Parts: sequence; structure tokens; C-alpha cells
Amino acid sequence: MSGDREHRPLVVMKFGGSSVANPDRMKNVARRIIDKKREGNRCVVVVSAMGDTTDDLIDLSKKINADPPDREMDLLMSAGEQISSALLAMAIQAEGEKAAAFFAPQLGIRTDSVHTKARIVEIDGTRLQKEITNGNIAVCAGFQGLDASNDITTLGRGGSDTTAVALAVALKADVCEVYTDVDGIYTADPRVVPEARKIERIYFDEMLELASLGAKVMMNRSIEFAKKYNIPLHVRSSLNGNAGSWIIEEEETPMMERPIVRAVAADKDQARITAIDLPDVPGVAAKLFGGLAESNINVDMIVQSSSEHEIGKNDIAFTVASTDLKRAVERLKPVLKDLSGGSIVFSDDVAKVSIVGVGMRSHAGVAAKMFKSLAAAGVNIEMISTSEIKVSCIISRSKADEAVRRLHAAFELGRQAPVAAGA
Amino acid sequence: MSGDREHRPLVVMKFGGSSVANPDRMKNVARRIIDKKREGNRCVVVVSAMGDTTDDLIDLSKKINADPPDREMDLLMSAGEQISSALLAMAIQAEGEKAAAFFAPQLGIRTDSVHTKARIVEIDGTRLQKEITNGNIAVCAGFQGLDASNDITTLGRGGSDTTAVALAVALKADVCEVYTDVDGIYTADPRVVPEARKIERIYFDEMLELASLGAKVMMNRSIEFAKKYNIPLHVRSSLNGNAGSWIIEEEETPMMERPIVRAVAADKDQARITAIDLPDVPGVAAKLFGGLAESNINVDMIVQSSSEHEIGKNDIAFTVASTDLKRAVERLKPVLKDLSGGSIVFSDDVAKVSIVGVGMRSHAGVAAKMFKSLAAAGVNIEMISTSEIKVSCIISRSKADEAVRRLHAAFELGRQAPVAAGA
Repeated sequence: MSGDREHRPLVVMKFGGSSVANPDRMKNVARRIIDKKREGNRCVVVVSAMGDTTDDLIDLSKKINADPPDREMDLLMSAGEQISSALLAMAIQAEGEKAAAFFAPQLGIRTDSVHTKARIVEIDGTRLQKEITNGNIAVCAGFQGLDASNDITTLGRGGSDTTAVALAVALKADVCEVYTDVDGIYTADPRVVPEARKIERIYFDEMLELASLGAKVMMNRSIEFAKKYNIPLHVRSSLNGNAGSWIIEEEETPMMERPIVRAVAADKDQARITAIDLPDVPGVAAKLFGGLAESNINVDMIVQSSSEHEIGKNDIAFTVASTDLKRAVERLKPVLKDLSGGSIVFSDDVAKVSIVGVGMRSHAGVAAKMFKSLAAAGVNIEMISTSEIKVSCIISRSKADEAVRRLHAAFELGRQAPVAAGA
Repeated sequence: MSGDREHRPLVVMKFGGSSVANPDRMKNVARRIIDKKREGNRCVVVVSAMGDTTDDLIDLSKKINADPPDREMDLLMSAGEQISSALLAMAIQAEGEKAAAFFAPQLGIRTDSVHTKARIVEIDGTRLQKEITNGNIAVCAGFQGLDASNDITTLGRGGSDTTAVALAVALKADVCEVYTDVDGIYTADPRVVPEARKIERIYFDEMLELASLGAKVMMNRSIEFAKKYNIPLHVRSSLNGNAGSWIIEEEETPMMERPIVRAVAADKDQARITAIDLPDVPGVAAKLFGGLAESNINVDMIVQSSSEHEIGKNDIAFTVASTDLKRAVERLKPVLKDLSGGSIVFSDDVAKVSIVGVGMRSHAGVAAKMFKSLAAAGVNIEMISTSEIKVSCIISRSKADEAVRRLHAAFELGRQAPVAAGA
């Protein structure tokens, strides 16, 4: 009997905060989970804090301590997921199914002690395994773990996604379903490109690029985790029963459509900084970026060139998040002074437009086609960055939407016929 | 150096929900705690959930599940204390003192698995001991424990008081201070008796009686706990620095005033039920009260007498909480039918007025003096119950306040001069 039970697929279902923001939505989610179980699956659910709970708790803490300690922040914030997991288990029980809620001390997720952005070091699935074997739907508080001192830790932004993937790994789940307020991953933002098409299947590497490039469906960390352990992710809507987008491992022998370009993304949260007329001596770049790293400012694209003005001088252009621009410029001032040369120009009016697809590896001329499309639209390219499976251009922010539409059309992303999938 | 540190007194300070209901009050409490530390004490703090948090969480759960499961209720409710402990530790740190917050998995409080009213089975103070030795103020989430499965449990009404006393026992504290919105224990309710006087010291046994008789300062369970392990309790105001009331063990050789009557209490949450004309056969009382016990209805005073109406018949009168009256009457109907005799009369218009004091043990005539005072005030006594250190009378509820004032005056409770105490 229990042997029979083990053959049912094990599904990890993750629901974000907006899906459980109030009692009605929570009941909807509960019915959704019950349907999944009654279809013959064993279910482990991971849930985020309800609606704005986490932000409310952070606001409250700021009223009490302008610079609240990280350890206590984690204890505070984790209460949000504790509450939602308890309530969701109650909602499932109200509909007549067996369910139990679990929080950090029971999940078996051990982390390091870097509070507010802890890394998982070990997962012991024994307790949850026992619960699902006993027929329970296990409703787990996302975002939280326990360090070696039994202090509660949280996993940083997108932490509940990480929890879901981590539990899927530990429990050897067949799939990890990530429920969101969108229908899946699209070839471009449908608000910008009306012809944008839902992607049926996308490879982990493509999704990792997209997530870095402005697609906000999932955080990179959880995708990396799923890729490492080859856990298929199914990103889908919490509002309807439509199939969403599967994020999967690239096959040795491809079974699915492998277009040259899978999707177009735009990131408007970008600013460009150019340090011009820098002395052309070793260690200049190290000094510039070392200073920024010390201030925890992430630098994205970097382009170095010889100065247009003077021989023996260099220009270095790079991008940072718009929100970091002011801090970055302030941080660079003493560095330039120290270098006895160079000056800073910057622009907060740029965007990064990118195309992504593993097919690029075997196709020449993809970048050229992108540049040609942008030129035809009168879009000036300020910086270019490429990887094996993506090309990114920094352009004027006001041209970003038009550029995305042009690229979507040029690579015929709206016209690719979906391949029949087993989902 | 650490040996030196250990000689500083260890104080457990408990703050209720109203004391930390908002950021300003929390900051006040933080300063209060810091003062205590700077006076040379080691401090362990136990805190309840902020203001109405627990009630709000219960309301939310009822919207999701009309009959929410106890296990998930505990996980849900404990989040309230988790939040307040994290915030209070932040408030202390904001004022420049070292503090850390702790919740169930770190407190070392192990309980049985009777959710929503768990009993403590073991306390391991190792972690907290380490924290205070390191100079931290340990801010502990009240009300919660962990059972053998690492499931969170809660300790029932007044649970944070129980936590405070339990930690005081485990850590061998010198005193457990219970901060409330009143100044201490009074000889009578000051809203009813303007001359009521704050009691400087009161014995555990007297306080246990008072708590059962309508004084709502602390729950019996935590007082019993403190008595068992001889932890002095100091009940005092969170709003001012005044000394409150000490609850202590009765000395072999009394060092303090030992008045005949320590205090007068009134409980207006009482209802009287009389089963009349019951057949005078063995087992009648067992059947009556067995039925009520099955329905978890607590019976307080019981008076049995031969029927006034008929030989061979009995009357049994008893009291229950007003809130249980309706359920109790319904529960008794089939019992009477089964007994083939008797009927029920009841009144929801009664109160229990009591006098308490260990001095009664060695003084005759205390009850008589009480009856005489009530008679002089025109108060009719419906039922009487006595123990070694208290006398209680059931009277008409409308006469309760007047009865308390009369008894307070008759036993000269306002005039007893306080004895100089070492506090």
C-alpha cells in the first residue's frame, strides 16, 4: 500500500504573496492544491507571506530601529510566512483534505548564518517525507531556514522560490510548479508587444539570461538551483488552469523547437557611467571597480576603449542599476582623485535591450541582424555586450519599447508555432 | 571576570501585550529594561504579542476555517510573540544595549503535544544562559514551546506569565517581575473601593485564591509554578517606577504583617444553577457533574441539601461561569430525564464575594464577621463556601460592589499600615 503510494508523482507547488493576500484568495489556492492532489499527486506546498505583510513588518521595524539588526529582522520577517502557511493549511483542512503546516525548525533547511540573505547548506527531507507518506499535504513556510545555532535565517529576495526548488531537490520531486500572476514566460513583455507569445518550454540557461536581463518572473538563484539538480520548473498562473511555461534542462538530442532567439527582454532600470581620459596604466580598472564592489554596487556591462581625445588615455564605460547611480558616482570621485586623472560622465536615461536563445551558438549573424533592425528603427546603440546565448545593447530609454517590438518582429517570435508538448 | 558577572542578580521581566502595543510603548519598555540592566542586573525579558495581534490572527483564521485545527492555530498564534520579541530586541539595540531575540526553537521550553494548552515538560536553559553570560539582554517570545516533534505549541491563557516563571526557574533567577497596567495587587478593586490599598507582600496561597476568585492580574498556573519552585514574583506597573506587590512563599517564622484578611474579591462572571427535588439515591451527583465535566464545563461552588419540599428528595445548587450557563442547562436536561426526577432553576444575576487571608487559619469567627457585615448591609447570602484561607458567598450581582466596600471596611483593609520591606 505504501509502496503503491510512492509511485504517485510528487509535486512541489509554490504560491507567491499576492496569491494568498486575503482569505478568499487563500481558499482558491486551497482548492487548487486539493485538485492537484485528487488528480493523483503527492503535494508539497511552499507559500510566501500574505500580500504586503513583509513590507508592513519592515516598516514597523524601521519605526523602532532606523538600522534594525539582521538577525532580528530575520526572526521578524519569517513570521509572515509562518502565518500564511498555518492559514493555508487551515484552508485546505476546511475543504476536507489532510494538511499540516511547517516552519523553519521542521523543514530541514539548514543555512549559513548570513542573515537576510542566507545560503542553504543542507536539506534533510525526513520530516516532510514522513508527512506526505502519511497522506498529508505539507504546507511549508517559504523564505526561511535555520542556521547551526537554531537561529532563524531568511533566503533573500525570491527566497520562497528557492525554498520550493530546495524542497523539490530534497524530496526528489517530479516537478516544481511556480504559481504567479502571469500565465508563464513570454517571448517579450505582452504589455509592450501585443503579439508576444507564451513560451511552452525554455532551457534553464536561457531563463537565467532572461532573469538577469529584466524578466522578473523568477530570481536567478532558484533557477540555478533547479538547473544544478535538474528539477523541471513549471511557471504558471494561479488564476487559471492553463499550462504555463516549462523551464527544463537542454537535451543532448533536442526534442523541442530550438529557435535562434527565444525571447526579447528590456531592462529600464539601468544607468550608464563613463570614466573618460583615465591614465593608461595597469590597475586602473581594478581601482575603479574595487571601490564600487566595496560599496556593494553591482556593475553589469563594461566596455573599455582607448580615449578618443588623447593617446595614452583610456575610457571605461559601464552600467549600474539606476538606483545605485548616485552612490556610484559619489564613490568614484575619490578614486579618480587618487588616480590623478580622468573625469566622470553619466546618463540615467538608458535601457538594456537583449535577445536570448541557445540557437545562437550554432547560427552566425544573429548579432548583426539585431544591430541592423535597431539601425533601421533609428535606434542608436551606446554599448554592446554578448555571451554565448545572448546579445545586449544599451540604448536610449525612450526607444526601449520600440526596439523590443522591432526585434520581436525581426526574429519572428510571434510566429513560431508551438510544438506539441506532453504537459 | 565571568565569575564576577555571575554575581549580578538575574531578573526575568515579563511585559504583556498592552505594554508593547505600538512602537512608542515598545521604546518605553526598552528603556525600562536598559535601566534595569544598568542598575547591575542580568536581564531576561519575556514578551506577549503586541496589543490585539493574537485576536486579529484568530479572527483571520476563523474567516478561513470555522473550526481551525489546534496544531496550525499554535503555529499561527505564536507568530505574534515572535514578532514582538524581534521588535523589542531591535528597540533595545536602538538605545545602544546588546540584545537578542529568541523564539520557541531556541528557548529550550519543551512541552507535551496538547496544542493550544500545552504543559511544560522540560526546560533547557543552556542557550539563554550563554547569551546572558555574553552580556546580551535575552528577549524571549512568550506563550510558546516546542513538542517532541519540533511542532510549535502554545501554553494557553496567561501563557507568557508561565513562560516567564518557567525561564526564571530554569535560569535560577532571583526574581520574576511581571509588568502590568496596574500598580500591583490591591486589597480590593480600586474602581469599587476608593480606599483600597496596594498590598506590599502577599503569599502564593493567598494569591492563588484571589486569582480563582476574580482578581485578574495573573493566571493561577504561573503562580502555582512560581510557588512550586519558590520564585518570588514582583507584580508592578509598566507605566511608572513604583514598587508593586511581591508574591512570596509563606515563611516558617513570619517576618511580615500577617493580617487576618488580606483582600476582598468579587467575581461577577458567575451563574447559579439549582437542581431541585432530585431522587435521594446514590450516584445522582456523579451523574449531574459527570455530564458537565464531559462538556468541559467547570463547576465552582457546590452545596447539597435535603429538599425543602419533600422528604427523600435532594436539592443540589452549584455555580458555573456565566458564559457556560446556557450550555450547562442544556446538558443537564437529558441527565434529569435519565434520573426520572427533579427540575432545574437558575439565575444569571449572581456574584461571588470572597475574603482571603492566611491569618484565618489561626483566627476564629472570621466567617461570622463576614456574614454579619453582609446582613447589616441588607445583602442576602445564597450560597457559602469556605476553605482554610478564604470564605466565599454567592449574593445578588447588583449588591456585589456594596458588599465589597462593606467587607473592606469591616476588616479594616484600608487602614493596615504597610510594614517596611526590603524591596
